Order: sequence, then structure tokens, then C-alpha cells
Amino acid sequence: MAEVWRGPIVESQHRGRAVVADAAGRVVACWGDAEAPVYPRSAVKPVQALPLLETGAFYSFGLEPPELALACGSHHGEARHTRMIQSWLGRIGCKPSDLECGAHPPFDEDAAADLIRAGTPATALHNNCSGKHAGMLTTARHCGEPIQGYGRPDHPVQQRIRAALAEMTGCDLAEAPCGTDGCGVPTFALPLRGLAVAMARLADPHELPSARAGAAERVREAWARHATLIGGRTSFDTKLMQAVHGAVLVKSGGEGVVAAVLPRLKLGLALKIDDGTPRAKNVALLAVLHHLGVFDAGRWQGLSEFWAPAVTNWAGAAVGSIRPAPGLFE
Amino acid sequence: MAEVWRGPIVESQHRGRAVVADAAGRVVACWGDAEAPVYPRSAVKPVQALPLLETGAFYSFGLEPPELALACGSHHGEARHTRMIQSWLGRIGCKPSDLECGAHPPFDEDAAADLIRAGTPATALHNNCSGKHAGMLTTARHCGEPIQGYGRPDHPVQQRIRAALAEMTGCDLAEAPCGTDGCGVPTFALPLRGLAVAMARLADPHELPSARAGAAERVREAWARHATLIGGRTSFDTKLMQAVHGAVLVKSGGEGVVAAVLPRLKLGLALKIDDGTPRAKNVALLAVLHHLGVFDAGRWQGLSEFWAPAVTNWAGAAVGSIRPAPGLFE
Repeated sequence: MAEVWRGPIVESQHRGRAVVADAAGRVVACWGDAEAPVYPRSAVKPVQALPLLETGAFYSFGLEPPELALACGSHHGEARHTRMIQSWLGRIGCKPSDLECGAHPPFDEDAAADLIRAGTPATALHNNCSGKHAGMLTTARHCGEPIQGYGRPDHPVQQRIRAALAEMTGCDLAEAPCGTDGCGVPTFALPLRGLAVAMARLADPHELPSARAGAAERVREAWARHATLIGGRTSFDTKLMQAVHGAVLVKSGGEGVVAAVLPRLKLGLALKIDDGTPRAKNVALLAVLHHLGVFDAGRWQGLSEFWAPAVTNWAGAAVGSIRPAPGLFE
Repeated sequence: MAEVWRGPIVESQHRGRAVVADAAGRVVACWGDAEAPVYPRSAVKPVQALPLLETGAFYSFGLEPPELALACGSHHGEARHTRMIQSWLGRIGCKPSDLECGAHPPFDEDAAADLIRAGTPATALHNNCSGKHAGMLTTARHCGEPIQGYGRPDHPVQQRIRAALAEMTGCDLAEAPCGTDGCGVPTFALPLRGLAVAMARLADPHELPSARAGAAERVREAWARHATLIGGRTSFDTKLMQAVHGAVLVKSGGEGVVAAVLPRLKLGLALKIDDGTPRAKNVALLAVLHHLGVFDAGRWQGLSEFWAPAVTNWAGAAVGSIRPAPGLFE
């Protein structure tokens, strides 16, 4: 799906697969095996956020679209991200130590350097999943469920997410392999098609039950309006959504997964790079979107930083580029 | 060549190829295409260091095996690495700003954090290639050549390296594709077999012209004796060489390349992961070494941190592991 050029030859290459589906579950376009399982990882956070709305938790705590965007996103641990989540936790009577996602340094390099200079260790607030986890804590609080263990597969929080995931993807999860995500909660292996269908149902929710359809529209609106809370200043997802002015909603996940909602075409997209490399997912996503006619020729040329990013040497000179595999353009 | 497991299934997988050769240029074992070109990148630094010895530059400036190891290595920018290179540059009448490798933060996380705390930007000394570049400057100084532009393909420094590379690999470089390495100097695309043959000739130099054979033995000795200068405290190459007590000499390069010298078997090894991912190169290298009988059963079990490293979540729990593809064990 992607080639890494250095000088006159391809130095490395990435295989992968992609599926485009509609809300009825039909595969509209496909590269590679649509049925082989994939862990959707963080690409499915917008679906994991649905119970936050459907339980009424979101409304009962007076939350707003920015918090919903943080629940759908993988923020980069910028100061504004962590401040918002800390304040959110306060509103539900929780504290950062209630988050079960573990700590990692902010993905944002400046924010990470700020912590080092301050001599302050990273906390669970800086974890890119802390917005999703704040959402999970919020539904547990609202439903009067135990806070501790909200990430365990048998906790009602995870059971609700599992049910929403099964309905949105159209996949039976009874026999689905289940792994542990980087943030400690279950991640179910689904056919790649299922992830694309879930995205299509966010793009076009009118056949969903009305409560679900309303939640899907709220998720889509928050995702589109608050791109900087979905990732961060330097995030691929954020920068791409800003560059295309919401024409595509993008959510990346670990190990080379990306999902996208195409609101105008009412389609969903899911893509997995076999080897799990982010650089390949990015250019392949752009090529698939181009193939679908999402961009006109002028807009496409203006997006070359996304579909042909330079490979630079340490002195900053371009010595190559990462390109979609030629076949993906056709 | 490698599988990334999460829970009960493989989440990601890596393809690649590997060649084992002897000093006569014979392929002893092979996985995948031995003839397709590869940029050897930093895996070939031990060959790039030969002219430092063969010109006499190394001796005329009174250098010692630790400097030779730094020239062969990709150091992690620890304080001792940069101190040694700064002192070396002083001995040849050069300064850090003469290095053309560009600057990047130290690969060593503690050293990088130290710079941030000190408010000091990274310099070319911290570049993992600064030892190789110090060696290049040393030969230019010794031969009375211009310092500026020593990294350009037509500079005598690079011409000598090119000649050594052609002889050691047994490859005609006249038509070889040439890219620019991360540190700005030429990197020639060679058949993967050529890189393995060059390593075999370091393992078993007795058929080489005597000056070359002597230089090869010096390189091998410095590489084996100063593992902490080849990489660093947290480097795969360093930790593996320490764990096997020099039974294998390892040098990794960018984009999933690794080369190894097997002194007892008098063989050389070269391996490239198609997609350029370091994690896959590491476990695949171990599997190939195991296949060659480099380790007895007990030693092999003790090396599981190298051939089956855990995939952990942010809270530090093991949620999977990276494994050589099953076929590589046989």
C-alpha cells in the first residue's frame, strides 16, 4: 500500500488492506482481505463513546462537545488537553488516580519537554486515552456502578461498549478474539469490514434506532468541530481534518489502523497496515480517499504533505519520500 | 519473518529476507531474495571504517580501539560518547561544527532529558553517526584533503569508502543506485548477499590482502571489545552482544537492516525487514542465529528477551509478544 523511496529506489514497502462500506453493511470498495480480523484499537473510540451519550451520563453531568471529542480522540497530552480532562474528572467526583489507562509521556514533544523541565512525571492524564477513560468513568458514575475495575471485560461499562460495538459493526462478538489495548481495556478483533461499517453508520445513521442515531450525530459533530482535541497540534488526524475542512473525519489507532467517516458520500472506511507502521497508514488512507473522489485535482495537489511526505536526513534535507503504492492511485 | 501477538491472535506481521554467506562469497543459507538491492545504511559502518586504518590515519593520530568502535557504531549520545568524540575531534584539529552529519537528540532517553533540563540544544556530537564522521574527518586530515565537503560522493574520503565497500562486498558499484543516508553521506544499494559477504570477510579475513586483513581484524576486535560504544546502555546491538559475550558481532542500520559477524563459524549475515521496522529485525536476527546453531538450548532460552520481547500496555503489563515467524525456527 505504501513505498518508502530513498534516492532512485524503493527502500522499504508496506502491505495492507482497506475496506469502504455503506451503512447497510455493503462493501463498496476493497483492497485485500475484508474479512480477516483486526484489532481496531483507538480507531474505534468514536464507537466506544456512544454509551456515554446513550446512558444519559453526558447530559446529566452537563458535558459539552469538547469533552465528547476528547472521549473520541487520542490527544497528545498538551496542557489544554490535560486541564480539560482534570476539570471533567472533578465534575464527576473522580480524580486522575481513578484512571486505569496508565501513564505515558505526552505525544506532543513540547509538552513532554515541559514535564522534563518541571521535573514532574507523566500521569494518566497525559495518556492519549485519558479522554476515553474519563468517558468510561462518567458512565459508571451516572449508572451508580463501581469505579474501580471499569476497564475489566465483565464491568458494565465494557459490556455496554461491547454491545454498541457489535451493533454498529454488525459483527457477532461472542467468539471474537479479545486482546488488551494499550490503555488496559478490551479490544475485540473484528473483520476489517466491520470497522468500516461502523464508520458508515456514523456517517449515515438514519437507519439506526433513534437514540443511537442521535448519539451518532453528536459524536460526528464533536469529532468534526474539535479536530484539535481528537489528536493535537502535530497529529496526523488533526492536521488532515483541518486541511480538508471536515470533508473526512479521521481516527487513527495503534498498529497501523485508521478509520474514517465520509459524511458527504455516507461511507465508512477502515484500513490496516500489516506491519503496524503509522507512516504507511497515512499515505495509504490519502490514496484510498483520492480513489473515492473525495478530493478534486487542485485539493489533492495541496495535500501532498500527507500523501507524499518527505524522508529527510538529520540535517533536514529531503532524501526521499513516502508514497502510496502506484496501484492505489488508479 | 516476525509476528506481533496481542492476546490470542497475531496483530501485525513483518516480511523480510536474510542471507548468510562465507568469505569466498558463497551463500550458505538464505530466506527470500538474496540479490534484490538493499541500502545497508548504518549496518555497514564497520566496512566504512576500514580506510581509517588503511590510510594510516588511525595510527598517526594515536587513536585507540574505543575510537574505532565509535567509528563502527551508532552511539546513543550518552555523555561518555559525546565526550570521547569531542576529544577525538580536538586531536585532529577539528571542532564539532566540522561534522556534516546534522544534529538530533540523543537516542538515549536519559541523555536527551539531560539536554532538555540543561536548556542545551542537541549538536552534531549527539548524532548517532558522529563517530563515523569523526573517522571520515580523520582520514581527510591525515591525507591533507579538504575538510569541508568530506561527505560528498566525489570527495576522496567517500571514494576510498566506496572502493573498500566494492571489494569487501564483491559487488560492482559502478551502476549501483546511490541514496543519501540519514547523516548525509552516500549509501549504495547492494544485493543483500553483498552485505553478508562483507561481514563474512570481517569474520574470516585471511584471504584478503594483508593490509586489509589487518584492518579487518582491528575492526572486529574493537567491535567485540567495546559493545557499549557500538550502541549504548539501552541499545539492542549492545545488549545482545553483551548477552552472548561476543559470540556474534551485531550492527543495526536504518529501515530494518542488520548485519552480523559470526567469528566462530567464519560467516557473515545480512537481514532486511521489508517494511523497515526495528522490532522485527531484532527477533528475526535471533531466529536466524538460532537456526545456524550459534546458541545451545540453554543459552537460547536465556535470550528470550531478544527473540520474544513482550508487548506491554501503558500500565506495564504484558499483553502480547513479538515472535519470529514459526518457519524461521526450523
